[in-house]
Amino acid sequence: MTDGISREELQLAARNHGMPLEALRYDVTPAGLHYLLIHYDIPEIHEDVWRLDVGGAVERPSSLDLDAIRARPAVTAEVTLECAGNGRALLEPRPISQPWLLEAVGNARWTGAPLRNVLEETGIADNAAEVVFTGLDRGIEGEVEQTYERALPLEEAMRPEVFLAYEMNDQPLLPQHGYPLRLVVPGWYGMTHVKWLARIHVVRESFAGYQNAHGYRWRTDEDDPGTGVTRISPRALMIPPGIPEFLTRSRIVEAGRVELRGRAWSGLGQIERVEVGLDGGRWWDAELDAAPPDPFAWRGWRARWDATRGDHVLRCRATDASGATQPTDPVWNVGGYTNNATQRVPVLVR
Amino acid sequence: MTDGISREELQLAARNHGMPLEALRYDVTPAGLHYLLIHYDIPEIHEDVWRLDVGGAVERPSSLDLDAIRARPAVTAEVTLECAGNGRALLEPRPISQPWLLEAVGNARWTGAPLRNVLEETGIADNAAEVVFTGLDRGIEGEVEQTYERALPLEEAMRPEVFLAYEMNDQPLLPQHGYPLRLVVPGWYGMTHVKWLARIHVVRESFAGYQNAHGYRWRTDEDDPGTGVTRISPRALMIPPGIPEFLTRSRIVEAGRVELRGRAWSGLGQIERVEVGLDGGRWWDAELDAAPPDPFAWRGWRARWDATRGDHVLRCRATDASGATQPTDPVWNVGGYTNNATQRVPVLVR
Repeated sequence: MTDGISREELQLAARNHGMPLEALRYDVTPAGLHYLLIHYDIPEIHEDVWRLDVGGAVERPSSLDLDAIRARPAVTAEVTLECAGNGRALLEPRPISQPWLLEAVGNARWTGAPLRNVLEETGIADNAAEVVFTGLDRGIEGEVEQTYERALPLEEAMRPEVFLAYEMNDQPLLPQHGYPLRLVVPGWYGMTHVKWLARIHVVRESFAGYQNAHGYRWRTDEDDPGTGVTRISPRALMIPPGIPEFLTRSRIVEAGRVELRGRAWSGLGQIERVEVGLDGGRWWDAELDAAPPDPFAWRGWRARWDATRGDHVLRCRATDASGATQPTDPVWNVGGYTNNATQRVPVLVR
Repeated sequence: MTDGISREELQLAARNHGMPLEALRYDVTPAGLHYLLIHYDIPEIHEDVWRLDVGGAVERPSSLDLDAIRARPAVTAEVTLECAGNGRALLEPRPISQPWLLEAVGNARWTGAPLRNVLEETGIADNAAEVVFTGLDRGIEGEVEQTYERALPLEEAMRPEVFLAYEMNDQPLLPQHGYPLRLVVPGWYGMTHVKWLARIHVVRESFAGYQNAHGYRWRTDEDDPGTGVTRISPRALMIPPGIPEFLTRSRIVEAGRVELRGRAWSGLGQIERVEVGLDGGRWWDAELDAAPPDPFAWRGWRARWDATRGDHVLRCRATDASGATQPTDPVWNVGGYTNNATQRVPVLVR
């Protein structure tokens, strides 16, 4: 790291948290181990007064309570969510925001009501362009006082996989994950999955709200208007083998046969290949687990390594059906988004 | 902060996490919001092969499976757990370890089997002195390879409030909180509540293991053998009022009447007083909620503040039945333990 982490970054790291990488062992990430990024405060919401208002460029605006949403046909899907800023703290110079290393990921089983039906029932105007999702979390960001909200192009909002989730891992949403309702947009980075959802507003023009027009844009420099961050780039992570040293988190591994295990995911296409690399030289193919139960859930992999004594650096690399793969070195950008450079795991074999 | 946070500290902060302070609003901390400190890795434990072995200086060693522990008479209690290192990152110079600010706390409802009965049934030797609790998490710390273990004096282990917990908030323990079994010692700092418990060993001498003899000792300098960290010092925390700025977490509050709310706790005695302070001058008494349902659970409080425009600094301070209270300034020590200096919440009133 070029510079030490600041007090401001530490405050964010103390609130928001990643998934300890040994939790890659669980098919479905247990409650509390899933990564979490909360822009402002977790809002205090009482279910008996909460409503979801659906309106804007529609023929029949509606207001739904949670029972009405729960009474609709339900879908359940495992979906891997990753923060768009995952890997940010590995960039140099380091963009100042939540200082993620590599742990900003999780794979939960979400249950909810498909969004498409809700939108169709309201009668979307012919010239509708986008759908704006507004949460109940309020704060100041980039000098703009705002309630967190993000827009999706209408065609993305109408994808059959998109839904309004009220359960995570078969339990009501936890407060920090958006209770009572959040958006789930499989394949997209986490900022899209608006939590504490209170309003869905169909609009005819391109939404100019902060989180679309200023935040979450991939910009090469401060003058670049940039392009919006959308779908998750491919990434593989491994469970660091062996045992850790408390303070440095460095790994000690016994010589001999080691089974490396991990997960890989992408919002661009199914994971088709994972490779493991050793010491900047040889790469070899990992064995992929069966395809995940849902198309945007992570896929397990394992690889054998005959560990010889000494210092080594392990890496892993995913490639998806679109042909997208991971770079060896980070690609810098102003906001520190979508850094999917391959994981680097130094180990001492004894 | 005197220096920026290092990569090593950031790695710890990305794994371990505090409780966002707005979660002080919940009587019982929801899963995933409770603070978490894991020395090594979360171990992978299969309940069907896991056993709890009870032995050492006892007449009848035993080996219990989880069903046998669940079949025993059960107790349920709300217990506030706090990391002994809470407040560490506010010390100058900053001791290098998990860089906690103030969020390393939580109040859960734990269910389990009283320890005292288990020990009595084994027939403790007359000259027994301590009880050693060993988890299944393994790593290296202070150059010592170890499985996490901590000893308690026999008289503490025999306290009626101490139990072996297999549920948290009416659910089986989550992996990160010690599944399938952990020790709960109400009133003591978190390092005592050994997770992934596998062995209870009664010994006749003072235990010389790392976490008692080297870690978790209050030392004025490196040559000081120090004294062991034990019970939780009193602390009050408030929910930061108003709304936050994303990056700085600074607070914006509307002028007028503000209700400040928070919690206070102590392992030394019941909370008897909470005061709120303004701008380094005036302090006034908060109103305490009814006594908590269990003696080592936190106690709610609220205080009215007539907020006037401008920059202000709020503080709060707890006093317990033993007369212990909180200092205004931190008291430095080598390991950065038990820093219960009063919280400082800068706000801008507009």
